[in-house]
Amino acid sequence: MQQSDDSGAPSFNPLVVLELISDTKEEAIAWLLSRIRTPQQAGGAGLLVEQLGPGVSAEHKDNPNLFLVGASWERLLSGAEDVGLFKEYSDGSMRGFTCTNKHNFKDFQGDGDGFLSMAECQYIIKHELETLRAKDETHVPGYSNAKLYPGKSIIRRLLSKGILIQMFPLHHKEELKRLSFSWYKKFKLSLQPLDEIRHYYGEGQALYFGFLEYFTFALVPMALFGVPYYMFDWEDYDKYVAFAVFNVVWCTIILELWKRSSATLAYHWGTLSRKKAFEEPRPGFHGVLGYNPVTDREEPLYPNAKRQLRIYLVSLPFVLLCLYLSLYVMMIYFQMEGWALSVHDQDPSFWTGVLLYIPSIIYAVVIEVMNLVYRYAAEFLTEWENHRLESSYQNHLVLKVLVFNFFNCFASLFYIAFVMQDMVLLSQSLATLLITSQILNQFMEAFLPYWLQRRRNKKMIRKVQKKRTPGDKELPLAEQVRLEADMSTYLGTFDDYLELFLLFGYVSLFSCVYPLAAVLVVLNNVTEVYSDAFKMCHVFKRPFADPAANIGVWQLAFETMSVIAVVTNCALIGMSPQVKAYFPESETQLILWTVAIEHGLLAFKFILTFLIPDVPKHIQIKLARLEFESLEALKKKKMLEGTEFRKSVQ
Amino acid sequence: MQQSDDSGAPSFNPLVVLELISDTKEEAIAWLLSRIRTPQQAGGAGLLVEQLGPGVSAEHKDNPNLFLVGASWERLLSGAEDVGLFKEYSDGSMRGFTCTNKHNFKDFQGDGDGFLSMAECQYIIKHELETLRAKDETHVPGYSNAKLYPGKSIIRRLLSKGILIQMFPLHHKEELKRLSFSWYKKFKLSLQPLDEIRHYYGEGQALYFGFLEYFTFALVPMALFGVPYYMFDWEDYDKYVAFAVFNVVWCTIILELWKRSSATLAYHWGTLSRKKAFEEPRPGFHGVLGYNPVTDREEPLYPNAKRQLRIYLVSLPFVLLCLYLSLYVMMIYFQMEGWALSVHDQDPSFWTGVLLYIPSIIYAVVIEVMNLVYRYAAEFLTEWENHRLESSYQNHLVLKVLVFNFFNCFASLFYIAFVMQDMVLLSQSLATLLITSQILNQFMEAFLPYWLQRRRNKKMIRKVQKKRTPGDKELPLAEQVRLEADMSTYLGTFDDYLELFLLFGYVSLFSCVYPLAAVLVVLNNVTEVYSDAFKMCHVFKRPFADPAANIGVWQLAFETMSVIAVVTNCALIGMSPQVKAYFPESETQLILWTVAIEHGLLAFKFILTFLIPDVPKHIQIKLARLEFESLEALKKKKMLEGTEFRKSVQ
Repeated sequence: MQQSDDSGAPSFNPLVVLELISDTKEEAIAWLLSRIRTPQQAGGAGLLVEQLGPGVSAEHKDNPNLFLVGASWERLLSGAEDVGLFKEYSDGSMRGFTCTNKHNFKDFQGDGDGFLSMAECQYIIKHELETLRAKDETHVPGYSNAKLYPGKSIIRRLLSKGILIQMFPLHHKEELKRLSFSWYKKFKLSLQPLDEIRHYYGEGQALYFGFLEYFTFALVPMALFGVPYYMFDWEDYDKYVAFAVFNVVWCTIILELWKRSSATLAYHWGTLSRKKAFEEPRPGFHGVLGYNPVTDREEPLYPNAKRQLRIYLVSLPFVLLCLYLSLYVMMIYFQMEGWALSVHDQDPSFWTGVLLYIPSIIYAVVIEVMNLVYRYAAEFLTEWENHRLESSYQNHLVLKVLVFNFFNCFASLFYIAFVMQDMVLLSQSLATLLITSQILNQFMEAFLPYWLQRRRNKKMIRKVQKKRTPGDKELPLAEQVRLEADMSTYLGTFDDYLELFLLFGYVSLFSCVYPLAAVLVVLNNVTEVYSDAFKMCHVFKRPFADPAANIGVWQLAFETMSVIAVVTNCALIGMSPQVKAYFPESETQLILWTVAIEHGLLAFKFILTFLIPDVPKHIQIKLARLEFESLEALKKKKMLEGTEFRKSVQ
Repeated sequence: MQQSDDSGAPSFNPLVVLELISDTKEEAIAWLLSRIRTPQQAGGAGLLVEQLGPGVSAEHKDNPNLFLVGASWERLLSGAEDVGLFKEYSDGSMRGFTCTNKHNFKDFQGDGDGFLSMAECQYIIKHELETLRAKDETHVPGYSNAKLYPGKSIIRRLLSKGILIQMFPLHHKEELKRLSFSWYKKFKLSLQPLDEIRHYYGEGQALYFGFLEYFTFALVPMALFGVPYYMFDWEDYDKYVAFAVFNVVWCTIILELWKRSSATLAYHWGTLSRKKAFEEPRPGFHGVLGYNPVTDREEPLYPNAKRQLRIYLVSLPFVLLCLYLSLYVMMIYFQMEGWALSVHDQDPSFWTGVLLYIPSIIYAVVIEVMNLVYRYAAEFLTEWENHRLESSYQNHLVLKVLVFNFFNCFASLFYIAFVMQDMVLLSQSLATLLITSQILNQFMEAFLPYWLQRRRNKKMIRKVQKKRTPGDKELPLAEQVRLEADMSTYLGTFDDYLELFLLFGYVSLFSCVYPLAAVLVVLNNVTEVYSDAFKMCHVFKRPFADPAANIGVWQLAFETMSVIAVVTNCALIGMSPQVKAYFPESETQLILWTVAIEHGLLAFKFILTFLIPDVPKHIQIKLARLEFESLEALKKKKMLEGTEFRKSVQ
């Protein structure tokens, strides 16, 4: 094994770190490294890999089995072709990169600097490591229980057996400093540097921040609309008809427009027309070995019927039970609320006035706790359902969590609005829920992890400074890697989107009775940008890039919410005193009209969804052009083959 | 020009006929034939073409400019590759045909008989003729106003200038006889021979008959459910709740299941995974010459904004005006109805009893006439909107016609059901509308064209028999071609689907008050199969095959209807006396419950649409397998190129 020098710096530019458990058997390590180093043609990954040196602050308890992975420049280019990267062509369009005509791509210089971003290189290395497959090994050397079969991804088996603890990409100190400066350290209002975020973190992250920014801007008109309401009509809950109408139109349009701007972003980032590679089974998937009917490769199979049984006989009842529990807690909250009100009515004082808010605050905290606990249960259940693909696992998890969170957060509001029909209480509850959950979220999400991370960070710096000249504040590589290895893992954009989803719900469903909601959400989003950016840069391990073309299942979730918003807003309009005044005699007439208008609005919404194209015209033309060119090229190729064919016939 | 012999039989198997106007200039004919005959490599179509001889019954007024087009066997194979035909591979999967590995396809024999069906050969020839493009000609020789520019489809220009009257595929007497025997001449109940229909008429036709058959079978349970209702509860309109619930479930499920069976059919016919070729502008499209941003070819351009203006400022108001007119006619009908009722009430007799049905019958006839007139207006307007693509033209036409037909046919029923709330009248009107429109349709659609065609047919046979020995009943080719050229052109499945759509509406929207509706529709469909089959075989010109993968925009139309059906059935349930009996005190409660259940059902319907996969599992696996294989092949190819690339770098 090549020995690295004392500072731990390898002979190549390290991109990705593999951490094996500290007591991994030598033979397994030797085998893994040789498989990674073997050239691709011989069935290896063709990458560069070295063990991380102990560093200056080495301690006995440090895990020695940290490996740095990199690749030669040509290997990265051929990897870019393997993963199907889209890059800007010399004519300004986005095309799939191929090594054979690499010189026709816009930013390609011979030395290759700057053509592939570091995030792309790391993504390529991750892909190459994950598609490193067993050949004729029956198990990992030294671990007879870590079974392998031809075609099984080695890294996934090592992960599922716990031999490989983690694989993560390294930060780039300089780039990170530049990014965090333009992102959140400039003290002036500016758009987020989406292209730079994408450059450093990949498309999935950048789309999240793009959506956050878009959502915030989309809320501004509603906030502006809301402020005068709040200022001049504080106690006048009757005037919310105009606001409800505004809500219905607003939430329909912004989602359609987001689809278009997300398509524009994804096109320029090259993910819109990129083909999805064939999806491998997720690491935790288990079953009886058999032949995959699609690939004809040997892999574990798990009968779909069994999974369906687990979903419908266990998961579904469990979710329903949780929903019932949530309803039960809600009823307790209303009893507390009633008790506080009766105390306040009997002997009103400042303290009983404060007491009025206590049940709401307690309820908001309980909701957050329940959401958190449920989240673990949902993860456990979805894992147990044993989905073959990561995407199917994610969809089932998102569905479970969404339904419960929606119910948990909004059930009480629905109850107040439509069963109790108490608009004052609705506005109070909405305000309390919104503010409490925001405060809790920001705390749990950013400040707590930051504080933990800072402690670790300081400890490491102190440790290093003991051995080095003081004043040298930059950490050496070995320490930097170990520090990053200890950082918490960023678990993807799930929680961030979930938070936005709930905020969108508060704003679109009931904000007409509490016009300040939009203002609060805008303020929250502004701080959210900063705290999310900060946590990405300094609290969590760098995540691998995720070449997303859109916000996926969340688009559907937000659209469902906007349909529900049409229903609630129409109902609120129908219940308002002004509208009731138009139908003084017959409540039936009022309800029928409300329902008719609601159906009309829903139909209009669906027609609008059809009429507004999901992809802007100029992007459509570019995509059609690319397809046309590939069809023409195919035709030309066939024509040539046809000539040969005819010749061979004659 | 090669002269064919007296009988008109060409030296090759004729597949397609081109008919030019009788006074076409000689130079234009010579030019066209030479362009068609020139091999593909030299920019021609590489097909065989001959003028049709005068035949035995030649008359002076006969058009001499009929041309038979055929192709050599190898030309058809390379054409099959051009159009992207999918054929069964030796391993049972469906793959895109390529000449290079033709021997690996299942039914491929060296001589090529039976590998391509006649319909496929005709489709290939049509495609090759339509993609025959002008090179440096500036106009059609002899016609300086028929402008050409490089890349313009010659056939389309000839069609739009009226020089080419028509292009149609020939019937095959033997095959047609066999098909019509197994289709409708066997006097026993059997499934339709969908594969044979597809073999002779192509996928679009076969899918229509498949849908007709599926729809008929789907109606059987409803008909069985309806008969006892009709027999035992004739005057008891109260008991329709169970029927309405049945309706809601029924219409949701059958459409989802149809999608699956249509995907299965389309897979086995090779159209499911076939890629759409780049669509040419339709022949009638006009505009200022410019460069298409997608293809960079010179072609007419028409600004989208102008088209939108025409749609929203002219077409939309016109459609609304027609809807208003239709409402107006409906109100007149109700006045007539009221008058008839008052006459019957004053002095009831048998004749006044008959009189009661007269307004409905008149109204049904007027509806049919209005639909017919509106149809022409819609075609004119859509033509005037100047759509670039045939598909966009079709979509706009279908939308216009559907909205009006829906309104025209169902407005009165909605009025009776929900404004007048008269269930007896509703049932009467439904029966009258359904029966009248069925009789009218069958007459207009099959018997009238059949009668006209028979007259022409007999005349031709008489003419031929004058010149030939009597007893020889088979027509010679020249006469057969001329006879077919005179047959009416089949205008596609539009009217057939429209009829099914309206029948589906009658059955799903209101059938709970007239349980016999499903029985009537089943009977209608059985006769419809026979009359449609008959008209396809003997009344109309053979149509070109249309490689459809599904029933297209009609799936959406039927699904929209089924959503509306949920709404009407819920409303009918809410209005029923039994349900009203549950809410004796509060009508408001009743309405709120009805609306809540309706919303629940709609939500359930959408969830069901998501849960039921559109393509059955076993077809999904086959498609995934194909895609996986092509990805693997690509990877292998890249690997080889990569090796070369690395060598060239070193």
